[in-house]
Amino acid sequence: MPTHRRTDRIDTFAVGLPGFSDVLTAAARIAPHAHVTPVLRSRSLDALAGCELHFKCEQLQRTGAFKFRGACNAVWSLTDAQAARGVVTHSSGNHGAALALAARTRGIACHVVVPQGAVPAKLAAIAGYGAVLHQCAPTIAAREAMCAQVRQATGAELVHPYTDPRVIAGQGTATLELLNQNGQRDGDALDDRASDGRMFDALLVPVGGGGLTSGTAIAAAAMSPRTRVFAAEPSGAADTFASLQRGELSTDFVPDTICDGLRGSLGAPNFALLQAHHVTALTVDDSDTIAAMRLLWQRGKLLVEPSSAIAFAAVLAHRERFAGQRIGIILSGGNVDLDALPQLFALAGT
Amino acid sequence: MPTHRRTDRIDTFAVGLPGFSDVLTAAARIAPHAHVTPVLRSRSLDALAGCELHFKCEQLQRTGAFKFRGACNAVWSLTDAQAARGVVTHSSGNHGAALALAARTRGIACHVVVPQGAVPAKLAAIAGYGAVLHQCAPTIAAREAMCAQVRQATGAELVHPYTDPRVIAGQGTATLELLNQNGQRDGDALDDRASDGRMFDALLVPVGGGGLTSGTAIAAAAMSPRTRVFAAEPSGAADTFASLQRGELSTDFVPDTICDGLRGSLGAPNFALLQAHHVTALTVDDSDTIAAMRLLWQRGKLLVEPSSAIAFAAVLAHRERFAGQRIGIILSGGNVDLDALPQLFALAGT
Repeated sequence: MPTHRRTDRIDTFAVGLPGFSDVLTAAARIAPHAHVTPVLRSRSLDALAGCELHFKCEQLQRTGAFKFRGACNAVWSLTDAQAARGVVTHSSGNHGAALALAARTRGIACHVVVPQGAVPAKLAAIAGYGAVLHQCAPTIAAREAMCAQVRQATGAELVHPYTDPRVIAGQGTATLELLNQNGQRDGDALDDRASDGRMFDALLVPVGGGGLTSGTAIAAAAMSPRTRVFAAEPSGAADTFASLQRGELSTDFVPDTICDGLRGSLGAPNFALLQAHHVTALTVDDSDTIAAMRLLWQRGKLLVEPSSAIAFAAVLAHRERFAGQRIGIILSGGNVDLDALPQLFALAGT
Repeated sequence: MPTHRRTDRIDTFAVGLPGFSDVLTAAARIAPHAHVTPVLRSRSLDALAGCELHFKCEQLQRTGAFKFRGACNAVWSLTDAQAARGVVTHSSGNHGAALALAARTRGIACHVVVPQGAVPAKLAAIAGYGAVLHQCAPTIAAREAMCAQVRQATGAELVHPYTDPRVIAGQGTATLELLNQNGQRDGDALDDRASDGRMFDALLVPVGGGGLTSGTAIAAAAMSPRTRVFAAEPSGAADTFASLQRGELSTDFVPDTICDGLRGSLGAPNFALLQAHHVTALTVDDSDTIAAMRLLWQRGKLLVEPSSAIAFAAVLAHRERFAGQRIGIILSGGNVDLDALPQLFALAGT
């Protein structure tokens, strides 16, 4: 009897949740627009971590983050009639920029609702990709009211950053690629050890709202069912950890973390998918995340943001658990404010 | 009659200078040890520069710089008897670290002569790869005396950072790879536009002592004779520019540049090769180099050091010359002191 978990029937266990076929469809749909990002290796980081690390470099994805995959799949899933009315979302971060560029690839309008007080550089980036910005008060109620107003005025399709099934399926394409790239010998596999086609023991991804984690779990379950999926989460925003432990969605928390991409709370469909696929959450202190980010920069020459470095930090913080294993890590993005680096690095402490 | 320069006979024009066959031999020799680094693209950097940029990412090479190629070729060129006596060089920078690691891949001793006052972090890196450090006064006479002393005591083979023909041939393998990768569609070519196999109009590399430039010129002349080779050089250490203009080797200068890898003066064999292959030198101000470095980090997520960013800076500074062209840029390394970033970025000015 097989001892590994059975996940082959999970894709269809609930209406509205995306499955592996949606990931495959998404991959075909975004192929003309998204990059196939390289998988990079570093012997010195392997030596530090005591395991074999394969970094899927989504910081090299368009807009500098994996978010482009989900946004692009959502935009290109629309009918022509839907597309003509544009898309709308609320995000002053990577999803906002990703949806703006995705909309541009289809030549349609994109509206992004942003809270007053958002970082001007990020808003400029979103506007730079051609989106129309709509400012609102920095509350959830104001944000939802503004979204509703934009939808009423324009008929634009809402593309939620992580609960939208089209977004989840799109994010799953990063893992689809990673698992297909494993075992190939080509220019981006920088090490012979990448070429024996052995399956990954574990995949680690950052978790905020759970879009990437859900997509990863769906793809891994279908392609490599013995590979365990871990979600790395800031200690100061550990709602996924709490939700999985209690067995019910926990949204009552005030995020306190430097990982600005991971402050959102786990979505309901995301929670269902993480539970179904037996994803394990690992919490990481910000100081460990920043120390890991510095190692990725210094030793790996991989320019990633804190919300991305957390997955590598989780490996370092749980060294015994991963010792000697073959590990896939999705480096989710590289949009870091270079002017804030001194303060960031100071957080790593001694 | 062909209008492009004839370089097919240059390989043998002078005894002692390496040729394309040496580059091919080097590629086979270092293949078990060196990474095949990816060639990355960025649409936003293309848009900024007004041309099509293909970045050969040697910051992802072992030791974080292309220098490992030449050092590795030199070490593995030795007979067993020579190898048993070890290797020696003088370099407190990337070549020292590269030779140390190359020696380790063959299990032989490596001696590195370093000036008193060298950056402790760099010395620690070289020692970390297993080399024996020999300190000397920070003068050329003291350095040469110490090298001679080490050679006398050990019989170690001197591997000069850029005049050694084995080193030059090894550095040429970066261009050999780049020109072979061009036209392939695989995971590391992040853009469809990379796949039409069109030749490069120009290759740009940084120049200090001229090892990389010489190797690049040899490989390009043999593989793609219509591709022009440009050497990007700091305005504050423009001896290559002066030498090529005057037609004689100019070594009388005091370097004043933030590009710590490019302060050395052009070697005599390197000068001969650059002249023979009609390499053009382009000078770049440090402030432009740092601004280019920041763009590579921010837009391309490519973590490179100033001595590496200068080649991209040269494209931006000579926009008209390269407009609409297909350009190969060798990003030579990524060994930058992260603690010094605020001061570095401040140099970029407004």
